[in-house]
Amino acid sequence: MPSSFEQAARRVLARADELATYTEEPGQITRPLATRAMAGARARVREWMQAAGLETRVDAIGNLAGRRGNARLVIGSHLDSVADAGRYDGILGILIGLEVAAATDLPIEVVAFADEDGLRFQSIYLGSRSFVGELTPQELALRDTNGITLREAITDEPGPPLYDPRTEAYFEVHIEQGPVLEAEGLALGVVTAIAGQSRFNLAFNGHAGHAGTTPMHLRRDAAAAAAEFVLAAERIALDEPGLVATVGEFKVPRGAVNVIPGRADVTLDIRHQDDGVREDAVARLRAETEEITQRRAVPVTWSTISHQPATLCTPALVEQVAAAVEATGLRARRLPSGAGHDTVTMARVTDTAMLFVRCAGGISHHPDESVSVDDVAMAIEAATHFVRASCST
Amino acid sequence: MPSSFEQAARRVLARADELATYTEEPGQITRPLATRAMAGARARVREWMQAAGLETRVDAIGNLAGRRGNARLVIGSHLDSVADAGRYDGILGILIGLEVAAATDLPIEVVAFADEDGLRFQSIYLGSRSFVGELTPQELALRDTNGITLREAITDEPGPPLYDPRTEAYFEVHIEQGPVLEAEGLALGVVTAIAGQSRFNLAFNGHAGHAGTTPMHLRRDAAAAAAEFVLAAERIALDEPGLVATVGEFKVPRGAVNVIPGRADVTLDIRHQDDGVREDAVARLRAETEEITQRRAVPVTWSTISHQPATLCTPALVEQVAAAVEATGLRARRLPSGAGHDTVTMARVTDTAMLFVRCAGGISHHPDESVSVDDVAMAIEAATHFVRASCST
Repeated sequence: MPSSFEQAARRVLARADELATYTEEPGQITRPLATRAMAGARARVREWMQAAGLETRVDAIGNLAGRRGNARLVIGSHLDSVADAGRYDGILGILIGLEVAAATDLPIEVVAFADEDGLRFQSIYLGSRSFVGELTPQELALRDTNGITLREAITDEPGPPLYDPRTEAYFEVHIEQGPVLEAEGLALGVVTAIAGQSRFNLAFNGHAGHAGTTPMHLRRDAAAAAAEFVLAAERIALDEPGLVATVGEFKVPRGAVNVIPGRADVTLDIRHQDDGVREDAVARLRAETEEITQRRAVPVTWSTISHQPATLCTPALVEQVAAAVEATGLRARRLPSGAGHDTVTMARVTDTAMLFVRCAGGISHHPDESVSVDDVAMAIEAATHFVRASCST
Repeated sequence: MPSSFEQAARRVLARADELATYTEEPGQITRPLATRAMAGARARVREWMQAAGLETRVDAIGNLAGRRGNARLVIGSHLDSVADAGRYDGILGILIGLEVAAATDLPIEVVAFADEDGLRFQSIYLGSRSFVGELTPQELALRDTNGITLREAITDEPGPPLYDPRTEAYFEVHIEQGPVLEAEGLALGVVTAIAGQSRFNLAFNGHAGHAGTTPMHLRRDAAAAAAEFVLAAERIALDEPGLVATVGEFKVPRGAVNVIPGRADVTLDIRHQDDGVREDAVARLRAETEEITQRRAVPVTWSTISHQPATLCTPALVEQVAAAVEATGLRARRLPSGAGHDTVTMARVTDTAMLFVRCAGGISHHPDESVSVDDVAMAIEAATHFVRASCST
């Protein structure tokens, strides 16, 4: 006979399958902010909240909150998706929150945020930012690809935020979106922080030339300089535990097989849970790049795309999550999140903690996103331990 | 009072300026095969040939030959251009041939080939191949971007080739199209060979992943593997005198700042005047690439675009060109040509030699292409020495 956690896990997966049918693109899961697909998914989750005995509210942007009693703990994640998404990113945290609410009579609030992946407005955290009352006039003036502003898309004026300032903690369960837990054979992970990140565009300016007639020692090859940069970024990241550095784009404008690259444009994305470590790594990479570009007479320009500081989860809550994971019989593997989450917003107003669930191949933002019944059952068990402990303190 | 060579050089530059006005694209020099621009330029060169006392003929594709007496030496180059070209590539060799013909009564033939840069049909050496009777039915069926075949474009059926099988040598003067002579402060260069070349497309197949959540040691980054390849190609070329290796294109399909590259597509162009050296270098680079791709678990596929063997200039004629350069008081700098020339075709039917003229910045195939009066005067003087010596043997 399956355990109650296994039964709950099967219900979570069935509900994720059902929510996957709410989409703006038939044959895919594509659920942007303020669409029919979002309204349909939200209505269904609202029914499940009500069935679990929660009192529900919706704000103008489409955040849905289901509350029981004198809730001081919010459990949530986001209901929107990227284009051609998987079915668990965001959804899993909402559905596990619902299971905990349904299986207990604890005073908690379950939240389904309306926008985290930012597909429609190329934005971040509009849902949670609206939830806590942080939306700016600039954000309300953002336009989607059809020229519709966020203010027009949500129809109502934003009212008072749903967030209750008496809230004491926010807890989010999420798929890992990475391969660490799978590589270590672990179902669950205890999130210590959400990495800060810096992103740059770099343009290497060399000198185009004839591939046949320009001797090697007279070249100023922009792509060769950029190739050295790629490997320098990789080496620096390998040297520093927890640091990740990615050159995701590499372009040679007007490149041709028989022309020495006169220019190469690359991007850099660098992340670490400790802002100082990240900043030191950027400084070291800048110095190495200076050496490369001086030696090759291929000057480079750096343009900052963005800097996001790291978000530390609340240490005492991290320990509570670790204890909850250990209570299920598992080892409490602590790891940072390299991806952003609604927790980043919530950490500005309350204490936070996160639990990661192993996902197959580390794949996310893709239809192949997958979790196992057993892992989801462990996550529900650990989440239940954590919520019980939180509500009893 | 200027020397006769300087006067001739000034006439060559003035004529190059005039030929630059025959173009299909106003404001540029763009002179493809079988166009009004080509017909106009050819008619003008024909007048100059006749004024120099040469008897002219034109074949169906538009090659123009001007002959005096019992000519056994052909001097030539090409009259067509790339898009937005300079004014000396090809033209200079024709105009210097004309000066030698005009200033002497030697029995020589001056040829203006109708197509070397291959702009219209994305081809190579259609002019010289037609001149020697090598054009194939496949080439006559080539289509331009408007769907017009070469056979339609030239209107007449190709007749018997203009080339006289009693020809004993072909001599071509050409801008260097590279920076070597300028870097060494030399006006002229003696071409030893036209480098052979191999071109490849390489596809590195890694594994796309989230830039934030995939630790460095679990990555299979296709762009990082390709970056190592770029630097390996460069290092191998630096190690081998005369070898040039170029990665001219570098693309990360569907690349994004926050995605680990799952694929990288690059090209390789590798050239040397000795086919064995080039083949050994390709083999060494393949072995190094195998090591890179094994270590990174990023398999690569190589696709051959083309292989062109090297063309050796005739050693005895190379020494005659060297002697002619020395007769002008200059040092005879021997160097290979990294670019292809009509000489490649002519070498299949007769002995060949080439003389390079320094061009500013090594620039060619660009409006900034530039030569000096003094250098052109030296080239005319050396060419005259060479032709006199050739015709007296």
